[in-house]
Amino acid sequence: MNEQASHDRTLEDRLRAVEDKLEILNLIASHPPSADTGADYFTLQVYTEDGVFDRGANLSGGQGNREVAAIMQTPGHQAAIQGGLAHFASLPHIALDGDTAVVTSYLQILTPQASGEPVEVPNHGASKGFRIHRVGANRWELVRTPEGWKIKRRTLRPLDGSEPARAILSGALARYRTAS
Amino acid sequence: MNEQASHDRTLEDRLRAVEDKLEILNLIASHPPSADTGADYFTLQVYTEDGVFDRGANLSGGQGNREVAAIMQTPGHQAAIQGGLAHFASLPHIALDGDTAVVTSYLQILTPQASGEPVEVPNHGASKGFRIHRVGANRWELVRTPEGWKIKRRTLRPLDGSEPARAILSGALARYRTAS
Amino acid sequence: MNEQASHDRTLEDRLRAVEDKLEILNLIASHPPSADTGADYFTLQVYTEDGVFDRGANLSGGQGNREVAAIMQTPGHQAAIQGGLAHFASLPHIALDGDTAVVTSYLQILTPQASGEPVEVPNHGASKGFRIHRVGANRWELVRTPEGWKIKRRTLRPLDGSEPARAILSGALARYRTAS
Repeated sequence: MNEQASHDRTLEDRLRAVEDKLEILNLIASHPPSADTGADYFTLQVYTEDGVFDRGANLSGGQGNREVAAIMQTPGHQAAIQGGLAHFASLPHIALDGDTAVVTSYLQILTPQASGEPVEVPNHGASKGFRIHRVGANRWELVRTPEGWKIKRRTLRPLDGSEPARAILSGALARYRTAS
Repeated sequence: MNEQASHDRTLEDRLRAVEDKLEILNLIASHPPSADTGADYFTLQVYTEDGVFDRGANLSGGQGNREVAAIMQTPGHQAAIQGGLAHFASLPHIALDGDTAVVTSYLQILTPQASGEPVEVPNHGASKGFRIHRVGANRWELVRTPEGWKIKRRTLRPLDGSEPARAILSGALARYRTAS
Repeated sequence: MNEQASHDRTLEDRLRAVEDKLEILNLIASHPPSADTGADYFTLQVYTEDGVFDRGANLSGGQGNREVAAIMQTPGHQAAIQGGLAHFASLPHIALDGDTAVVTSYLQILTPQASGEPVEVPNHGASKGFRIHRVGANRWELVRTPEGWKIKRRTLRPLDGSEPARAILSGALARYRTAS
């Protein structure tokens, strides 16, 4: 455990850490609904004023909560939403350290299949199915603020066999490297 | 936060809220195993007697826990299970408010590919792969009962670009709209 | 609930159970990053010395933490990683019982599509997409140790319509069968 042994900490401290983790889970779980509805009002509030969304060299990101939120209202993002966009979040890993935290998570971006024949699954309707457009590794660097946990920096890299995504994933295992 | 600031609440109240959230996570995590094994005994117990499963106009739902549970034993659902059915749950968002809660989650319905050539992935066997048949947005309206948290209403809409799914997702962001 | 009613337990006991569950969620969330980076140092530490990874008759598993960890460094697994391997974890179900716990979870194994034409999604780049190579049901039998929760046995079976995966999933619903 990257926290002090429980017998050295007060009930209050321990309970606060537990509440922090559940609040952080909820923050990460709020992201797909915001991305799939273009909720710039959410992005504006959950990034710090100087928060950064880094999508690498090939996709536009943002510097500052206003710039990151503005992505939601671009014609491109709105078109993706109209076409049927679903961000699908895995179980995230949380490393909490006092007033900061690092979350490591996987994310799928799904869209309806445009071609092909519909397939029927009994009791589950007919559908052409969905395709997984991208799979990404995410590193969310969070800070505690008077308004709750906020995003200081989000780094997203595609899981296509290239090194940057693996570097993000390795970050979740840091305490195991130290110990070995 | 849609809860009182922590300094106004007793340790007991705060601990109970934390236990509630973890119990709710477990309830939502139990749904895929129940759907993929046809566990009507589960559905009967976790829906309230007047609980509703609303799948929209094109798929049959249920009114009351007995009717919802009966779906599990229909020939259609049993055939889907025999064909290899997997419900795959995302990280859900929980909005807890005393004795009620609203959970917003994504769900994939997966089935084995019936056609195509098997592909080999080193150390991971050969497989024709799986297809994502449907992706849905779920709104789970929960109530606290003497037997634990139960489902009062579940609303499921397909994430195919149509508005009803987006309305469900927006529900998870309600507190951010109020604040902005 | 498979735990005593809350009024019979001390705050300390209840808080410890909550901390246990969050630590277990983090352990399960650490698995995909370890598998996708070949982190044998993680596997070595989180399996007990006699820990078992059982993948069924058709895929090689391991007996003991050293043997399970060694899978990570096989040429096959390393080749899969270079090709772009992503383990994608669902929301897991946790059944905690004092110093042991059983976790039931779904897992997708994703790889980039090798063929087909790239598809462009506005604001989300172009990609040939990803395929779901396998979907598995996992049963993780955990034990509390002085170094934290560890894996005593992991059983993985493919969700392809065959019975063994359904037997694993049913395990998550045990308390509902007893009660009905």
